[in-house]
Amino acid sequence: MKDDLEYEPLTPETLPGRLKNLESVTSLIGNKSEEWKVTEVGDGNLNLVFVVEGKQASLIVKQALPYVRLVGDSWPLPLSRSFFEHETLCRQAIRDPGSVPQIYYFNKKQAIIVMEMLSPHVILRKKLIAGEYVNGLGKTLGNFCARTAFRGSDLSLATNDKKKDTALFQGNVELMAITENLIFTEPYFEAEMNHHTDGLEPVVKTLRSDVSLKQEVQHMLVKFTSNTETLLHGDLHSGSVMCTDNETKIIDPEFGFYGPMGFDIGMLISNFLMAYFSQPGHRTENTLEKYQNWILSIIEEIYSTFISEFSNLWRNERHGILFPKSLFESQGHSSEGALNGVLDHIWSDALGVCGIEMHRRILSLAHNADFEEISDLKTRAELEARNLMMGRQLILERNQIKDIQAIQTLARKYNSEKHL
Amino acid sequence: MKDDLEYEPLTPETLPGRLKNLESVTSLIGNKSEEWKVTEVGDGNLNLVFVVEGKQASLIVKQALPYVRLVGDSWPLPLSRSFFEHETLCRQAIRDPGSVPQIYYFNKKQAIIVMEMLSPHVILRKKLIAGEYVNGLGKTLGNFCARTAFRGSDLSLATNDKKKDTALFQGNVELMAITENLIFTEPYFEAEMNHHTDGLEPVVKTLRSDVSLKQEVQHMLVKFTSNTETLLHGDLHSGSVMCTDNETKIIDPEFGFYGPMGFDIGMLISNFLMAYFSQPGHRTENTLEKYQNWILSIIEEIYSTFISEFSNLWRNERHGILFPKSLFESQGHSSEGALNGVLDHIWSDALGVCGIEMHRRILSLAHNADFEEISDLKTRAELEARNLMMGRQLILERNQIKDIQAIQTLARKYNSEKHL
Repeated sequence: MKDDLEYEPLTPETLPGRLKNLESVTSLIGNKSEEWKVTEVGDGNLNLVFVVEGKQASLIVKQALPYVRLVGDSWPLPLSRSFFEHETLCRQAIRDPGSVPQIYYFNKKQAIIVMEMLSPHVILRKKLIAGEYVNGLGKTLGNFCARTAFRGSDLSLATNDKKKDTALFQGNVELMAITENLIFTEPYFEAEMNHHTDGLEPVVKTLRSDVSLKQEVQHMLVKFTSNTETLLHGDLHSGSVMCTDNETKIIDPEFGFYGPMGFDIGMLISNFLMAYFSQPGHRTENTLEKYQNWILSIIEEIYSTFISEFSNLWRNERHGILFPKSLFESQGHSSEGALNGVLDHIWSDALGVCGIEMHRRILSLAHNADFEEISDLKTRAELEARNLMMGRQLILERNQIKDIQAIQTLARKYNSEKHL
Repeated sequence: MKDDLEYEPLTPETLPGRLKNLESVTSLIGNKSEEWKVTEVGDGNLNLVFVVEGKQASLIVKQALPYVRLVGDSWPLPLSRSFFEHETLCRQAIRDPGSVPQIYYFNKKQAIIVMEMLSPHVILRKKLIAGEYVNGLGKTLGNFCARTAFRGSDLSLATNDKKKDTALFQGNVELMAITENLIFTEPYFEAEMNHHTDGLEPVVKTLRSDVSLKQEVQHMLVKFTSNTETLLHGDLHSGSVMCTDNETKIIDPEFGFYGPMGFDIGMLISNFLMAYFSQPGHRTENTLEKYQNWILSIIEEIYSTFISEFSNLWRNERHGILFPKSLFESQGHSSEGALNGVLDHIWSDALGVCGIEMHRRILSLAHNADFEEISDLKTRAELEARNLMMGRQLILERNQIKDIQAIQTLARKYNSEKHL
């Protein structure tokens, strides 16, 4: 593929011709492109994704489309998101080695990333719906959130590099606008593209008429749009995680941006809570409780790992301009109180984002398979109602809820109640 | 002056030759450059400033030096600050018309801004030391802070424009680094360039051994360095304000950056409080109380004007992505509660910045004439001690102190106490 070729969406037919001259590709899957098997597998909302299988190996070709795939070409979306995804992947690979797929090739103009085929990995959301277990899941995710949050922030980076990078990622404006609209604003009024399950109306009405709730969500939007604390994944739900029984990888950071340190982990926990609440739609009594308990244990593992790794980095890699050692350790003063203050701030933001994500996945444009695949609408609505009402409490009480154990307790409480 | 001439620091001798061919200059002060009277008047910490007087009119030529004037060429500082000053001045002129000097000419390469000569305006700090009154001072400053804060934020700007501008101003990194170091960090340990008045040691020790205080200041630094809420002046002290008896103008925004909405107004109030505490060093009993009361009335006027104008803009110009009318007014829901939440957030940040500025001007590199001109060191130290201790309370209690009246009460209390 020539680097200066114009953008053109790939098809299984055109792909081999465009990739066959890339050394980084042929060295992996062979140069007989006529023998490659190409399958389009994209099931996300935005992009084309191809699996390209050669004789000995396979790889993934991801290409941005100039519009939102979920909606169609009536909603244009710039190809530059592919650039930001690639930039974010490169930084994540440095900040948490092994956490993301390896990159073989990137072409900005054609919005193409060629990367490692994760196999036999499966999208985590599918595993959570199927009731499958993953060893080390919480640990990998907690470490990923801690390492990317810390190492992308002013706690670690040189201030010149941080500001330069912050400026760069302000260019991912259209993707940030999706988050600003679909996550923070549209769930809370009857926006055009919204939809929700029949029967959910009483709870929807409760939320949309709750002025305090809307205020608090908008205060969180202030943070999303103007707290450039660290480089985030920006879309870290269970569809952006791929797992085997024993390995976990994080994919798809095209929403990468500088935002609040609590954003990724808040969104991640939220998607586990949605998996938790949706379980009665997927399991029978005899496996339900055990699997729900496992999900809650993963949430705990994510957060305790996050705290532990973030604290470890605070003590050993704090070389940025924030909370400098010259002010604390060098004066014989502990910085542990300051660390706790930072962790409290992250926690409160995470809870806010968590609650908001729990709302938008039920009320806004892009829903989760966790609930969508429950065909009994009455059951689905009831489970969604529990999820929505817990989300509300998280947003409103994000400065009071103390720890992850309190979240587990709350989840069990809402899981046992009827809200419709 | 040719636009492509290389940078060279101007002198009173070279200036006429370099400016004489500029139509924007000669149309104002005449084209007989040999008749111009050029005087270097810069008394700030960073730049060259010339008054150029022609037959009918005068103007100001401000030129950045490639180093910090206060320190010398051992501390290099990029000429680009002139670019950021000009960019900020242009935005301020639009957002609060009439508040800043008119610009006649700008040359990026030569780091020169030619602007309106404010006459008979005097630097506000000098007036405050001399005990002079200015009509409408609080109103002009309060409006300036409200209009620039609101109109430079996501409450007003289109999100594309806001993000593009945020990215641009991340380039003012060296000036931000000065603030990050000199204001937020160096006051709180024995940094190399620090100095303070003899006799102040007990209070300095109290502050520097207060771990909670240092933590809170660093939490404020997190906000400074990563809350890009609005385009700020960035250095809004009483040396950046020029007044006649009835008119007030704001100058020198070379520290312009996107930061917390409470930053400018917090620094401004701080400088009035320092003027207040320093008064016993400048006045005799018979005029002291009246003038100190006037200063406190100005603080009140600044903040009440800020609230009133910010609220006015909130109700009439809220066209950005934050707290959109679609969520509130269009649903028959009031947004006044949300407004109060935003004002509380600004207030708390302002108090934090206020207290920190009260510290750094006594403990760090750049001091204020308000205190420096008090030649009796014992008096100076005692007045500075009051100022330092009140600053500490503002930082630690910034989330509890309710309103500007509470600040006035606190100031009177500290003003009546001995702290050494």
